[in-house]
Amino acid sequence: MPTQISASVQTALLIRFRAVRSATLQLCSPLTPEDMMVQSCPEASPAKWHLAHTTWFFETFILRDFLPGYTPFHPDFLWLFNSYYNSLGDMPEKKLRASFSRPPLESILAYRAHVDTAIEHLLAGSLDEEAIRRMALGFEHEQQHQELIATDIKHALFTNPLHPAYIEASQPAGEGNATPLTWTSLTPPVPGLVEIGITPDPTAPDAFAFDNETPRHTVFLRPFALANRLTTCAEYLAFINDNGYTRPELWLSEGWSTQRAEGWQAPLYWQRDAASPTGWRIYTMHGFAPLPESGGLADTPVCHLSFFEADAFARWSGARLPTEFEWEYAASSLSTRIAKQNLLSTTSGSQPVTANFIETGTLHPTVAPQVPGLQQIFGDTWEWTASGYTGYPGYKPLPGALGEYNGKFMSSQIILRGGSCVTPATHIRATYRNFFPPATRWQFSGLRLAKDA
Amino acid sequence: MPTQISASVQTALLIRFRAVRSATLQLCSPLTPEDMMVQSCPEASPAKWHLAHTTWFFETFILRDFLPGYTPFHPDFLWLFNSYYNSLGDMPEKKLRASFSRPPLESILAYRAHVDTAIEHLLAGSLDEEAIRRMALGFEHEQQHQELIATDIKHALFTNPLHPAYIEASQPAGEGNATPLTWTSLTPPVPGLVEIGITPDPTAPDAFAFDNETPRHTVFLRPFALANRLTTCAEYLAFINDNGYTRPELWLSEGWSTQRAEGWQAPLYWQRDAASPTGWRIYTMHGFAPLPESGGLADTPVCHLSFFEADAFARWSGARLPTEFEWEYAASSLSTRIAKQNLLSTTSGSQPVTANFIETGTLHPTVAPQVPGLQQIFGDTWEWTASGYTGYPGYKPLPGALGEYNGKFMSSQIILRGGSCVTPATHIRATYRNFFPPATRWQFSGLRLAKDA
Amino acid sequence: MPTQISASVQTALLIRFRAVRSATLQLCSPLTPEDMMVQSCPEASPAKWHLAHTTWFFETFILRDFLPGYTPFHPDFLWLFNSYYNSLGDMPEKKLRASFSRPPLESILAYRAHVDTAIEHLLAGSLDEEAIRRMALGFEHEQQHQELIATDIKHALFTNPLHPAYIEASQPAGEGNATPLTWTSLTPPVPGLVEIGITPDPTAPDAFAFDNETPRHTVFLRPFALANRLTTCAEYLAFINDNGYTRPELWLSEGWSTQRAEGWQAPLYWQRDAASPTGWRIYTMHGFAPLPESGGLADTPVCHLSFFEADAFARWSGARLPTEFEWEYAASSLSTRIAKQNLLSTTSGSQPVTANFIETGTLHPTVAPQVPGLQQIFGDTWEWTASGYTGYPGYKPLPGALGEYNGKFMSSQIILRGGSCVTPATHIRATYRNFFPPATRWQFSGLRLAKDA
Amino acid sequence: MPTQISASVQTALLIRFRAVRSATLQLCSPLTPEDMMVQSCPEASPAKWHLAHTTWFFETFILRDFLPGYTPFHPDFLWLFNSYYNSLGDMPEKKLRASFSRPPLESILAYRAHVDTAIEHLLAGSLDEEAIRRMALGFEHEQQHQELIATDIKHALFTNPLHPAYIEASQPAGEGNATPLTWTSLTPPVPGLVEIGITPDPTAPDAFAFDNETPRHTVFLRPFALANRLTTCAEYLAFINDNGYTRPELWLSEGWSTQRAEGWQAPLYWQRDAASPTGWRIYTMHGFAPLPESGGLADTPVCHLSFFEADAFARWSGARLPTEFEWEYAASSLSTRIAKQNLLSTTSGSQPVTANFIETGTLHPTVAPQVPGLQQIFGDTWEWTASGYTGYPGYKPLPGALGEYNGKFMSSQIILRGGSCVTPATHIRATYRNFFPPATRWQFSGLRLAKDA
Repeated sequence: MPTQISASVQTALLIRFRAVRSATLQLCSPLTPEDMMVQSCPEASPAKWHLAHTTWFFETFILRDFLPGYTPFHPDFLWLFNSYYNSLGDMPEKKLRASFSRPPLESILAYRAHVDTAIEHLLAGSLDEEAIRRMALGFEHEQQHQELIATDIKHALFTNPLHPAYIEASQPAGEGNATPLTWTSLTPPVPGLVEIGITPDPTAPDAFAFDNETPRHTVFLRPFALANRLTTCAEYLAFINDNGYTRPELWLSEGWSTQRAEGWQAPLYWQRDAASPTGWRIYTMHGFAPLPESGGLADTPVCHLSFFEADAFARWSGARLPTEFEWEYAASSLSTRIAKQNLLSTTSGSQPVTANFIETGTLHPTVAPQVPGLQQIFGDTWEWTASGYTGYPGYKPLPGALGEYNGKFMSSQIILRGGSCVTPATHIRATYRNFFPPATRWQFSGLRLAKDA
Repeated sequence: MPTQISASVQTALLIRFRAVRSATLQLCSPLTPEDMMVQSCPEASPAKWHLAHTTWFFETFILRDFLPGYTPFHPDFLWLFNSYYNSLGDMPEKKLRASFSRPPLESILAYRAHVDTAIEHLLAGSLDEEAIRRMALGFEHEQQHQELIATDIKHALFTNPLHPAYIEASQPAGEGNATPLTWTSLTPPVPGLVEIGITPDPTAPDAFAFDNETPRHTVFLRPFALANRLTTCAEYLAFINDNGYTRPELWLSEGWSTQRAEGWQAPLYWQRDAASPTGWRIYTMHGFAPLPESGGLADTPVCHLSFFEADAFARWSGARLPTEFEWEYAASSLSTRIAKQNLLSTTSGSQPVTANFIETGTLHPTVAPQVPGLQQIFGDTWEWTASGYTGYPGYKPLPGALGEYNGKFMSSQIILRGGSCVTPATHIRATYRNFFPPATRWQFSGLRLAKDA
Repeated sequence: MPTQISASVQTALLIRFRAVRSATLQLCSPLTPEDMMVQSCPEASPAKWHLAHTTWFFETFILRDFLPGYTPFHPDFLWLFNSYYNSLGDMPEKKLRASFSRPPLESILAYRAHVDTAIEHLLAGSLDEEAIRRMALGFEHEQQHQELIATDIKHALFTNPLHPAYIEASQPAGEGNATPLTWTSLTPPVPGLVEIGITPDPTAPDAFAFDNETPRHTVFLRPFALANRLTTCAEYLAFINDNGYTRPELWLSEGWSTQRAEGWQAPLYWQRDAASPTGWRIYTMHGFAPLPESGGLADTPVCHLSFFEADAFARWSGARLPTEFEWEYAASSLSTRIAKQNLLSTTSGSQPVTANFIETGTLHPTVAPQVPGLQQIFGDTWEWTASGYTGYPGYKPLPGALGEYNGKFMSSQIILRGGSCVTPATHIRATYRNFFPPATRWQFSGLRLAKDA
Repeated sequence: MPTQISASVQTALLIRFRAVRSATLQLCSPLTPEDMMVQSCPEASPAKWHLAHTTWFFETFILRDFLPGYTPFHPDFLWLFNSYYNSLGDMPEKKLRASFSRPPLESILAYRAHVDTAIEHLLAGSLDEEAIRRMALGFEHEQQHQELIATDIKHALFTNPLHPAYIEASQPAGEGNATPLTWTSLTPPVPGLVEIGITPDPTAPDAFAFDNETPRHTVFLRPFALANRLTTCAEYLAFINDNGYTRPELWLSEGWSTQRAEGWQAPLYWQRDAASPTGWRIYTMHGFAPLPESGGLADTPVCHLSFFEADAFARWSGARLPTEFEWEYAASSLSTRIAKQNLLSTTSGSQPVTANFIETGTLHPTVAPQVPGLQQIFGDTWEWTASGYTGYPGYKPLPGALGEYNGKFMSSQIILRGGSCVTPATHIRATYRNFFPPATRWQFSGLRLAKDA
């Protein structure tokens, strides 16, 4: 039922829409149409496909349902750019996306313009509340694909035997020394019950959360402690040099067999380099850099780890990974600013970003500052948790095809929390649950140590 | 530190040892040496290997550590029959077990006799408490392999194109009608905290539990309801006939791609049979039987389901799978008798077995009786839960090589509860956690529906 | 030893060089830079890679060896565009070619211009005879890649779910009716000895042949007969409709297991189409066209067959495939014109091309004309023979890295003869031996029936 | 049409039948029923299966067609022990043979007895000529499986981590020194035409040849030379020590990629052994033996080579492999004795066996004697040739299901000639063509060098 919404909400939606859509294009600006064709691993998609699919999402779930008389840009695009929504019909196999030389990039850009115009037209009129909710979902969806574009293009350029940089760095990959590792104890109030997740507020449809963050529910937690910052490359190198990759007692059985089969000897993007003081160099979005023994890049958070490597490192350290509930409990108190951000906030763009998100332009995790308290909870790298990905008590997927967004992936995946240096700042929150299979390494994924109190 | 233990404890250990060891041989009595060579899927091992490996376990973890002057049966056996304990050195690849025509079965039986004699000798003297604990572990370990022998030989005989029976049935696979499906509500006491798992009692070393059942800890539970019995073949057939296997919206994404790739159209051991009233026949340990439309085999619990199939069936039913905590909370109140059983109980053999365990000789799940209350919580089929396999808060693996027993498998597996018709009665308990990857079907695995209260 | 060559030879080389190089670019003119990125099957390479690799060939084997002071275009290109010459050092894995978004197409075109300029400079001076031989090899090499560009881009565009055409057809895919199938008997002179292959004439370095066509040698042949034309789509459709793909007795064992595993039911590029009179449509370089029951496309030669399909069809027909020697004996008498063509002939461009080569622009096999005699020996489709690919008696590979050109592939491949509709006219000859593994279908490969006389 | 055959022919058939059948059982006498269950690689079958399948062959192709009123031993055996004859209906997948614990060995032996009795009954009456031909085929078929039993059980026992011997050796694996390598020149008579293969003589149905040896036909050969003996282990070790396995220029492209992927560093059954003077030990039917630097085992013919290794060794040697025609031409003059042997010869058992066939009991190739002339043409090891497996000109498979015996394998395989130390003496002849894919190593396959004259 369309209802007239306030001008301020309309304005806010429009500003957010334009900001999100232009950020995607901005991210692709260093790329050629040829770069945007590459699909270098099964997890990844070509950048051009991401441009089209995010547009398809607005067309499919908003324009076709809520803009009367909307004419789709092209009938083939309706199935060509479907990712995995079986309810909507058949779609091309994911691996075929590398063959999409047609439609050409200019058609995809025209598709974006066509849909953008229609969305702006829609936003100018009365708007159904469900449409507002889907706009919010569309924003978050596009932000997820912004992160994927960054992740995928890093892999694509690294796969190229020439290893070109995405962009030249304005500054070194890391500077100075990370704050020393200390432990922060956290003790839930007696009897140990904390609230996890979020329950959508029907009176505030703009306070977005994915269905998999709902409903808010009670969890029992024991006292625990978290490391004050992420694990660094130097710390991880000590694990490597202590024969971490050749000692089965440090590994989960599945992790051991995976790293044996894959020949892992270090995180993804680390390469042997006799000219480096440590014998290693690391590929970043700015090309390769030697790994020093300490300081600079050595003190940046280690990333592109699988869950198995994070888990083995934690075991080697005499510690463990936090559960997703421990992490969220710790993060919640820190995240007032972020939790209060919402899609209608027009000031987020001008707020000082204190975490290392994609907006900083570093595109790589940075050295933890020498300040007290929990650092790097948000941004820098995703943090592997000890928790498998399952539905919260009372979880219900969204109705219809959108129910396939999150729920159907709830098996054999592990929760990651906190966002990374390629996550948009307004996309993350304390309740946000990311998830990947445990062998995944192409994400900016690292770890924070935890232990029992 | 060896200490003299009481004569009654010694006697009890001896009786249990003999009972467990002879039960393994008894289980193999319908098998020829040739049958005991077959390894028909990657999950399975030849029965002969099970006979040797369980013996190796007593030799390696008890005799070599606690019986001074013990001479191993054969130096090659020390590595040949190691399953997966990397701490003890290299071992043959699992898939090579089908090549173990040598040592011949008679040597394996001699190996058993050699170790049995030595254990009896050990039990006649003073005994370290750690040795007692390992004896208990040895019993439980051998019982796990009894279940595996039954599971593996079923698969082996089914794989044979002649599909021979393990033994002829003394009675039909199922009789009568199952009690109608009803729901039992369970409401944890305010504020919803229940205790899960078990903490070993140092003063009662005979109250065995695996390390993965420890420590006992607090969990928050919301009110919920469980089906009074297991899901039946007839109910599952309705899912099949409602196109359950061709509707992606009913499946987890990983489940959908798995069943497509594998070509699943029904549980393992179901085959099309035009002569059957339902069009299906089911292979049991007693050979094939036609699946009727109702009653008899149709009313027995469905088994040999993957987690994906159990989950899809639950979704189709408008219900869900229980969490392992919900299941344990429900089972705990029922399991006084079983929880109190321990390795020193010498009367278990003569107790009336009210659940359908391996001792009933049915070797197949049976029809739920027409009585009120939760039925089939123990025995009949393992029940897939909604819970991934992770360590409990504060979990510590056993020290040394035995630490590899359970802990290293805590990724990408799903918890099953309650035991099956091929589980020994004294092996199971309310806190017992079984675990398999979600695509596993060769186990006697079924499901019980759950829902929010 | 460089020697001054005649002005006419220099002119001829220069004209041929320009003709060959420009033909490659001409072939790519309908393609976008994005199209030229696609690598849609393991056999194929991106068109951009072909442009670079053919240039690398001239640079590596001619300019670096024969042009004093030559500066390579870019040091990375020296290894980046090596295809399979192990003697020259490591090279990227073939499957990585799809990641070569950098260097961009404009750099590849600059590379071509750089090398073209240098070659023209080389040709302006005195020239070593070995350099002349390698120029000839470079021409033939580039022509092979022209054919591969056409073959690969057809597969790339077909793989795209939109199935775009390479170019619109100026005329229908086929017209009229093929000449009826008749048999031509061929009887070698008593005692049955014929000469096969070619021995390079040191006094005519311009009469090019690949090493695998040498040396000319004697073979004993019995009388035989060849079909007067290639097998048509209509004839092959009769095989399909006679359950050709489901009758194992028609197939080689390896062919049967291959087509079962791959799910073949028709040649590559045939798709079911309920709207077509035959139930099939065929993808060509001009898009899809329905397959009629007779005439037109139905009477064009069937192509994109594996050897296994060609062999099964021949068996079903009560005939067989010819040996490569039978084919060459038959072709030799027809090929005076072609055999006399050589790299210095400047008139070939203006000669009427009577066979259907790439220069006709049809880019698809055409209907055999209603004239007597052996038709379609050259062009239209490659003809699978019954002969495995081995070296001729006395065969010696070229010295050095060029020895890897042909010789190392002499196992598990089958000889094809005669060229196809995407072979350059001046590239083929009666002694030419093409070779592919028997399951290969992405080439324009068809068959001609043979039988014993 | 049954006709009364002479008593001498009947007697001869009977004697040969009993000899062949009992030789198969004799070969299995060192094996336990458990040994006879093992199937350790895709090429191999369990020995028990071989016992049954050879029996099935007599039952299917002789008794069912030619013995009126014959009752098959068991209806299931009619399809259970079919190997690959699609014309006779479906059969179990080859890999399932390891699951055939039932029928037990005693049933297979009873099956053999049942069929043997029936065959003897058949031989006692009048006999169709086709039945006689099939008897001959049955003898040869069973002899092929005798060789396979030896080959397969060697692999099975080697795969067992204990590496048991098949039988203890009565003498060392090799003694003394091989005759020095010399070259024997062979020059076909002008104009170079030789006759290859054999044309069945309808008046001598007992002169057996497989269909793939027919028809006898003319081939043109140039003068050539053959090594006087097989290549030895010492010679092959020199190739290894000259980095033969790491120099791509020595290998066919397919061979190089195969050995890289498989990690080959030596022939199958060679293992690193620091205690051996050469650093290698070799597994034989009598267990492992160290490889000395010269003499003894070092001078025995190298075996268990793939075609790729044989080809690479020949290239490294500056020589080549002979074609199958060169080999046959050379062998024919030597093989008068063997060519004249036939199925009715009752004296072969008492003839001195001068070649090293299975009857010598060495079960391993032996040192070439210090005598002039071509040695080891027959026996010791199969000799890889340079020839692919194709049908001879005018080749026709046998009619009916027996047509699947040889013809359908005529792709992607390489011809081997001469038999090995596990080939029955009466099975081989100069025209005999064995064939395996080029990567095959589990056979007793070696090589003899050749070169152009």
